[in-house]
Amino acid sequence: MKRVKELNGSAAETEAAFYDALNRADLDALMALWADDEEIVCIHPGGARLIGHAAIRASWATIFANGGLPIVPSQLHETHNLMSSVHTVIEGVTASEGTPAHLLATNVYVKTPRGWRIVLHHVSVAPGAAPSDTVVAQILH
Amino acid sequence: MKRVKELNGSAAETEAAFYDALNRADLDALMALWADDEEIVCIHPGGARLIGHAAIRASWATIFANGGLPIVPSQLHETHNLMSSVHTVIEGVTASEGTPAHLLATNVYVKTPRGWRIVLHHVSVAPGAAPSDTVVAQILH
Repeated sequence: MKRVKELNGSAAETEAAFYDALNRADLDALMALWADDEEIVCIHPGGARLIGHAAIRASWATIFANGGLPIVPSQLHETHNLMSSVHTVIEGVTASEGTPAHLLATNVYVKTPRGWRIVLHHVSVAPGAAPSDTVVAQILH
Repeated sequence: MKRVKELNGSAAETEAAFYDALNRADLDALMALWADDEEIVCIHPGGARLIGHAAIRASWATIFANGGLPIVPSQLHETHNLMSSVHTVIEGVTASEGTPAHLLATNVYVKTPRGWRIVLHHVSVAPGAAPSDTVVAQILH
């Protein structure tokens, strides 16, 4: 096992390492952050459900062929208990058919003997620019 | 509290009740299945992130104005520990700009004193018809 797997003392730390690996197109570092479990799931924006290390690794290898992804996650929203942590973040702005859009990611982490590890990464595209941090108030009114 | 909240002895049972409520456009039954926590998150297909009971309830009320959703989830994939359960399901086929597509949902449940409750529902659209249960093997090759 790589030593990197034992450095993740919190879900937030694992998430930071995840996006750092995406930025650097570091496939080995990225995959080391997932749970040692063939039940892991990854759904890319507009993509099908991928299950297990081989399928997920292959998808990131294809993405990284074009270089790293300059994603800086923001507006973390978290709900957690002692053994799992459910994060949603805004991965940044994009464009869908020429109109502004933003990417929303759900990242689920579980606590394992080797630290907090990813069990699910699910991203979708939402219309409009990334909302401000006042989005909740805006939705309520 | 509604009695329905105490009937959910497993995440699978809560999920069945969730899709039953969607089919029947039963807003009260639907909302009773979520955790009593303002940190709950709902992301509809192509939609923005909604946080908290008020925003999520309002979104479903709008959807139900057109009646229930005839969703029959299939191909459940699950990973869980003692206190949380992460499900992904295929919610069925749809169409995106005239081409076949299918809906992928991530549903996260946590065990509460009142049973298993929803903390996150995130749906995205994937291209193509709903894959068969052999999707994993297809992806690997």
